[in-house]
This record gives sequence, C-alpha cells and structure tokens, in this order.
Amino acid sequence: MEFTAKIISDFLKGTIEGNPEEKVTDISRIEEGKKGTLAFLANPKYNKYLYTTEASIVLVNNDLKLEGEVKATLIRVSDAYQAFASLLNLYTSSLPKKRGVEPQAFINDNATIGEDCYIGAFAYLGGNVKIGKSTLIYPHVYLGDNVTVGDNTILYPGVKVYKECKIGNNCIIHGGTIIGSDGFGFATEKGKFQKIPQIGNVIIEDDVEIGSNVSIDRATIGSTIIRKGAKLDNLIQVAHNVEIGKNTGIASQAGISGSTKIGEQCIIAGQVGFVGHINIANKTTIAAQSGVVGDVKNEGEIILGSPAIDIRDARKSIAVYRKLPEIYSNINQLEKQLKELQDGSNKE
Amino acid sequence: MEFTAKIISDFLKGTIEGNPEEKVTDISRIEEGKKGTLAFLANPKYNKYLYTTEASIVLVNNDLKLEGEVKATLIRVSDAYQAFASLLNLYTSSLPKKRGVEPQAFINDNATIGEDCYIGAFAYLGGNVKIGKSTLIYPHVYLGDNVTVGDNTILYPGVKVYKECKIGNNCIIHGGTIIGSDGFGFATEKGKFQKIPQIGNVIIEDDVEIGSNVSIDRATIGSTIIRKGAKLDNLIQVAHNVEIGKNTGIASQAGISGSTKIGEQCIIAGQVGFVGHINIANKTTIAAQSGVVGDVKNEGEIILGSPAIDIRDARKSIAVYRKLPEIYSNINQLEKQLKELQDGSNKE
Amino acid sequence: MEFTAKIISDFLKGTIEGNPEEKVTDISRIEEGKKGTLAFLANPKYNKYLYTTEASIVLVNNDLKLEGEVKATLIRVSDAYQAFASLLNLYTSSLPKKRGVEPQAFINDNATIGEDCYIGAFAYLGGNVKIGKSTLIYPHVYLGDNVTVGDNTILYPGVKVYKECKIGNNCIIHGGTIIGSDGFGFATEKGKFQKIPQIGNVIIEDDVEIGSNVSIDRATIGSTIIRKGAKLDNLIQVAHNVEIGKNTGIASQAGISGSTKIGEQCIIAGQVGFVGHINIANKTTIAAQSGVVGDVKNEGEIILGSPAIDIRDARKSIAVYRKLPEIYSNINQLEKQLKELQDGSNKE
Repeated sequence: MEFTAKIISDFLKGTIEGNPEEKVTDISRIEEGKKGTLAFLANPKYNKYLYTTEASIVLVNNDLKLEGEVKATLIRVSDAYQAFASLLNLYTSSLPKKRGVEPQAFINDNATIGEDCYIGAFAYLGGNVKIGKSTLIYPHVYLGDNVTVGDNTILYPGVKVYKECKIGNNCIIHGGTIIGSDGFGFATEKGKFQKIPQIGNVIIEDDVEIGSNVSIDRATIGSTIIRKGAKLDNLIQVAHNVEIGKNTGIASQAGISGSTKIGEQCIIAGQVGFVGHINIANKTTIAAQSGVVGDVKNEGEIILGSPAIDIRDARKSIAVYRKLPEIYSNINQLEKQLKELQDGSNKE
Repeated sequence: MEFTAKIISDFLKGTIEGNPEEKVTDISRIEEGKKGTLAFLANPKYNKYLYTTEASIVLVNNDLKLEGEVKATLIRVSDAYQAFASLLNLYTSSLPKKRGVEPQAFINDNATIGEDCYIGAFAYLGGNVKIGKSTLIYPHVYLGDNVTVGDNTILYPGVKVYKECKIGNNCIIHGGTIIGSDGFGFATEKGKFQKIPQIGNVIIEDDVEIGSNVSIDRATIGSTIIRKGAKLDNLIQVAHNVEIGKNTGIASQAGISGSTKIGEQCIIAGQVGFVGHINIANKTTIAAQSGVVGDVKNEGEIILGSPAIDIRDARKSIAVYRKLPEIYSNINQLEKQLKELQDGSNKE
Repeated sequence: MEFTAKIISDFLKGTIEGNPEEKVTDISRIEEGKKGTLAFLANPKYNKYLYTTEASIVLVNNDLKLEGEVKATLIRVSDAYQAFASLLNLYTSSLPKKRGVEPQAFINDNATIGEDCYIGAFAYLGGNVKIGKSTLIYPHVYLGDNVTVGDNTILYPGVKVYKECKIGNNCIIHGGTIIGSDGFGFATEKGKFQKIPQIGNVIIEDDVEIGSNVSIDRATIGSTIIRKGAKLDNLIQVAHNVEIGKNTGIASQAGISGSTKIGEQCIIAGQVGFVGHINIANKTTIAAQSGVVGDVKNEGEIILGSPAIDIRDARKSIAVYRKLPEIYSNINQLEKQLKELQDGSNKE
C-alpha cells in the first residue's frame, strides 16, 4: 500500500509542512528512518533525529519548534504519539484475522463457541466453557471447566485459565500467562503448613490487556478482579483477592500481595512490590522498585522508595544519601573541633 | 449443601454464641458477607466488619473481645483461620476429581501410570516416565524421559518437567512452572561464554506446593532440592544446586542464586534476592525486597534491607534515612555556628 | 564408561599429581565426592573440601597451593572450571540426540524443516515457518507464521515464538519463554489507554542462550534484538525495542525497559532494573538489585544501588547508612554541646 502525506494528514486532521504528494509505503523509527517510510516524533529525547532522518514523512506535535533544517515532510497533529497509534491501528485492523477451528483442538461437548472465532490446534476447552464472538484462542491455550471468555478477545499461545474464571470482551492476554492458580494461603500448625483451599475465581473485565508470563491467583473466597481497561505488562504477580482498578497501568515484574486493592488510573512502574491488605488511592503513581507498605490515602500521590514515601521527600533523602561519606567525615571533623573549643573553654 | 451452626461447631469442637440452628449454604469474606453464608475473622484489620457483616455465621478466635453488637451467630474456636481451612478442605475433598486418560495424551510405551490417575489431552509422557496413584496430570504438561512423579500429586496445565527430575507424593505444582531447565553456568574465554553442561537434576520431595511460572533449574552435577513440606509462591527463581529446607515458605518473585542453601521453617517474603553459595539458618525470616549477601548463622534471625541486616538495626537506619534532609541542614547549621564560635574564640 | 587420570589429563593437557591409573566412572561435586568420581575445584570457598573429599580425581588450577594432605589424584590445569566444562561438553555430546517428527506435531503445509531435526508431539509450526538443520523443537513449542529458526538450535518444551520473529543458529531457549509478545505501549486519552499496535519483531542472533519463563517483547516498529553470544537467565523481562549486546550475560529476574540498549560483554546481576531509552556502555558490570536510571557512558564501569552509582561510592554510602542511628545520636549530642558552649560564650 502507498499513501501520500495528504491522505494521511486528512485522516489525522493534521497540517502539512512540505510536499503533500510525498509517498510512503512503510513505517520506521525516526532514528532508523529510510526513504519511503513514515516516522513519528513524540519523546523530546529523539528530537535530534528529526534533522538527520531519511524518513519521507514525520508526524510531529503542533507545538514542536524546529531548530534546524528538516528534509522530511512534516505532518503536525495535536498528539503525534496518539496519531501514530491511530495509523498503526488502521494498519493492523486491515490484516487478515485467523478464523475457524483447527481439528486438533480439544473441545468438550458442552463447550459453546460464538461466530467467527479461531480455535487453534492443541487448545483445550473444558466442560461448559463459553466463548463469545470473534475471539481468538491460539494453540496450547487451556480453558478449565466453566470458564467464560467474551467477544473479540485474544488469548495467545500457552495462556492457561483455571476453572470458573471469567474473561471479558476486547481483552488481550499474552503467552504463558496463568489465570486462576491457587492463592498462596496456608495456616501453620506445629511448624508445618496446612493448605487453605482457594475456592474463589478470577474476573477480568472488558478492555484489559495482560502481558506474557503473568501470574494471577484465584481468590480464597470471592474473586480476584482486574477492572475494565487496566493494562498489565509481563511477569507480574497478582495474588489472591487483589483488585486492580479501572484504567490502571502496571509495568513489568511488579508484585501485589493478597487482598490489596489498587485504585483507578494508577501508574505502577516496574519491579514495585506491595504488601498485602492495603488500599491505594486513585491516580497514584509509584516509581520503579518501590516497596509499598501501607495505604496511599490521597488521590494523585507520587511515591518512591522502599519503603515508599512522597517522591519529593524520597529524592531529598537520596540526594543526601549520596553525600553520606562526606557528611560522616564532616561530623567527625565537627566533633573534633567542638572538642578543641570545649577544651579551650575549660582552660579559660 | 446446607449446614447448621451446631453441625459446624461440633465438627470444629467450637462454642456457639447465638442461634445453633442458623443455616448456611455458602462461604463469604466477612466484608462481603451475605445472609446464608459463613465467614471467618482472623486478621484484626478486619475486626470492624464483624459488627456490620450480613454473614449468618462467623468463625472467630476464642480470645476475641466483642466491642459492639453482632448480628451473626458466632462460633468460637482456638484458631479461626485454621478452623476455616479445615472446613474448606472438607468442602474441596467432597468435589469430584478428574480421572482417566484422555485419548489425545501422548504416552510413551515405556511409561507407567498408577491407579486412578488423570492424564489430560496433549499431556506428554516421555520414555520410562513413572507416575504413582491418584495423580492428576493436566493438559499441556510435559514430562521428559525418566521423570518420576509420586502419588496423589497434581501437575496443573503447562507444567514442564525436564528429563531425570523427581517429584514426590502429595505435591501441587501450578501452571507454567518449569522444572529442570539448565542452570545458568558458563566459563568465560576471551570475552565469550562457554556453556557448562548441566547434567544434574531437580528433586522435589513430598508435600511441596509450587506456584505458577516458577523456574527451578537442574543442578550442574548432583541435585537442586526442594525439601518436604516447602511452599513456593509464583514467579520464583531457584538456581542450580540450590537447596530449600523443610517447611520453608517463599513468597512471590524471590530469587535464589546458585548453590545457596536455605534452612528449615524459614519465611522468605516477596522479591527477596539471595547471592550464590551462602547458607541460611533454620527459622530465618527475611523481609520483602531484601538482598541477602552473606550467611545467616543464627536460628530465628529476622533480617531486612539490601544488603540485609538485623531488622531492628535496619528499621533504625530507615527512620534516620527519612530525616536525612533535615539532618543535612542541621549539620550545615552546626558547622556555621561552630565557625562563629571559633571566630569569636579566636578574637578573644 | 571408565577413564583413567592419564587419559583425562592428556585430553586436558594437564599435569598429574598422584596415580595416573586412578579410575573414574562418574562426576561429583567436591563436597559430595565419592570413590570412582571426578570432581573439580575452582571457587576458593570450596578449597577446604579438597582435603576431605572422597572423589578419586580432582581438577585444580595450576596455581593452587596445597595446605594439607590430599587423598585424591590431582590434575592441574590452567583453568579448572573451563577444563571441567570441556569434559562435560565431551560427555553430553556423546549422549543420543532426539530425531524425527512425532506424528502428533502440527506442521503447516508451507513450513520447511531441515535435516536431522526433532519435532515433538503437540509442537505447532505455522505458515512459512523455516527450520534449519539438526534443530530440536520440543513438545508444546509454538512457532507463529513466518518464524525462522536456524541450525543446531534447541527450543525446549513450551517455548512460544510469535509470528515474524527470527532465531539464529546454535541457540538454546528454555521452557516457558515467550518471544515476540506485544510491547507494552499505550497512548492515554481522557484517562483511558489506547493500544499502540506492535508491528515489529524479535531477532535472536547466533549462540544465544535464554533461560525459562523469560518474556521478550516484539518491537513497536523495527526489532528487539539479542546479539550474538548473549546469555540470559530465567524470568527476565526484555521490553520492546531493547537491544542486548554481544556476549553480555544477564542474571535472573532482571528487567529492561523499552528502547534501552545494553552494550557488549556486560555483566548484569539478578533483579536489576533499567529504565527505558538509555544506553549502557560495553563491559559494564551492574550489581544485584540495582536500579539503572541513566546512561552508563564509560566502558568498564561497575555500578550498584537504586539509583545505581559507582560501586565504590555506593559501598561507602552503605557503610555510613548502617551507622545512621549512631550518627543521629552524635549530631544531637553535638547540638547540645554546641548550645552549652554558645550559652557559656554569651554569658561571658
């Protein structure tokens, strides 16, 4: 397919600077741009590449100020990243989708499958499984008894969903993710662990995306819940009875202990850990590798550190932390000088 | 099924406060309790819900002091959490168990399978695999050549066990867990890595539970060993030649480097890391996100931090750490004041 | 098989101390050595076992100085660890290799498979998949459309490779590892996430080994690249558009955020985290649990901490950190004494 700057700009409701007839047939990263490709510029870290890129067209923000000569034709839009996302979505929605049931799939007689689905070879659908319309179940997916999956959802190869769990519409779950494994619950008796059976389930609401190799445990009783629009990256731990709020994003390798509730529109960075049984307010931001050990009560807080505290305080402590060796020597110096003064004072 | 408070209390050897004929048909969490359900109260954080819950029966500890009016019928027991666990175990043991071999399983001619097992579709049993009685092998499980699995063990969907590894009786291993992958061992020669073949295996003793997406590497030589009764949560790394002691519990995302030996009845919290080749004494407790860089020699130590130190010392340092900006300004103040004193003193 | 010290020493070009006719039939760890086995000693932590081991032959470094009587026959070599690796490689290369296509595999008509490959039952090869010679594809491996795998590569059970990704020659990828899942990319609009389609791929060059349960995301556009000879341990996160340099080694549970580029011959310890869009110089060493928040510009740097700084500075700060409670009390003492001096001074 070939597109002109004009066609793209019209689609994005943008403004052209340069040749409206400039043509592209592919997409590239701005730092690797080649003739005939379209790139975008959103992160200011990459501004410098605008002046050297070979890309034929570059999407930029309306407010970008040029600081040199640009060879490419520019299309200005209010949000270049989002505009680029729209183009990619247009492109991917034009790709053919898998359909039909491969004969090597195992489908229990009681399972029901909606129209236009794909069920890959070696997928396993247990008793009373219900799958909506236009959903893709890739090879090696396991759906235990009584699992339901909504419409237009994608389960990539190797996803395992234990019995009774529910997955909504328009979800994407990547390979190797395990949904509904037992929560880690034990009573201890004379130094031995006694298993607490985990008889709840996992509910994943609509529009949720979950990365690869994520572990989401079923509730002891009740449900572990991922609310509508939440997005989870890879290798994340979600313990039993956790609840993750609407439109919250969680980066890779974060871990959330049992019964903790995370609010809506939170941003959780990579490798963050949460203790159990705490509540995190809506719109909380948590910096990477933080350890969250108590409730976050006020909307919009930004926290950092292990244990995590307000990011401004945390940064001040970090700044001083680096000076600790110098401070230590200063204190020793102070003590010595004070001693001299005291001695002098005593002599008088 | 329907049970009265009297029947439950008799089973648990408890004491009833309220209506012995109160009936329940389901289980609930105390904060979400509904009429006709049984809940329990063990964590004091949830005490407040006792006075508002709609649950018909609540299990509580003998020593709980009421601080208000309670609508529910109470059953007092010595340990409410454990009593609840017993009830759940009773319930789950009454559920039907999967049995039989689904024809789509791959079973090598030399494999032997005990009575009353379940072998799911697309499970793969290699040469000389031996499986005991009443064991459940779910779909997509892989057992390499010469693997043995004991009696009454459950391998959930997608567990992979490499050749020569041994799994005991009454074990539970959750989906996506990999047992027996190569240890990460290389010699370096002129800046390149030369692989050290890993020819040992993994031994998992009886009564072990392992969560989902755990990685347990085979030993270089000898065995990586998980001792009887140990419990591992999800996404844990167990490197080659590690040994984990009896009845030790390890929370999610902890990582244990090669040849480290962890004692019995230890409690390891989430995201803890251990360097290699160290020994951890029995009954050690390690707080979340700690980094353990040396032996722990005395039984019963509790450590925290990265590098981890005695938890009391660690907490004192954390408390002062938060005051660092203030301390820094105090020191600057002190230096200034001392300077003034010195100047005054010099003038005299 | 039985070997004499002489045969082994000749193969390794070593020097014998003891009985050249000493025989071994197996391998052991020095601390668990038994008669008839060969052990090695490379890590000085294990020196003490040399004087008590029952192993019949021990490989040691040329420069090892004996500090007691040794029962075993010694073979001295320049690098005992590497010599041991050579022996293990000799041993494992003598083991029979799996070959042939198990009939329960799913192979798309358009897929091509080189000579002497193994394709296990329930492996799935999509359209236009190309596999080189002598490559092993274990059960439950998924290769999406247009995936290519080189010669002499091993994909262990449960590896999933999404469409369009490329894997080189002589690679080893362990169970449960997911290659090519979508990068975690979203634009936000009115508090909701809008997915950025990820249309790039993953390229894994020759001689790469990747552990179990690793997640490697495909690029948004372009490629996520693991360069020749790099070695990754288990449970590692590699985000979209990351590049890992030649012969770099990364330990378990490390996480690398999007578009970060790691140089050649770096050593990354366990649980390290990297923010996105940074560059790490060649031969950088990063200590365990560090958080890397900016470029590392100079070759050969060693860094530690979260945020990571030069390891010498980091260690100094850690040393003082432990003394913080004492320092705090000293400062309070100083303030008090200074106050007294000031009061004294004012009175004069």
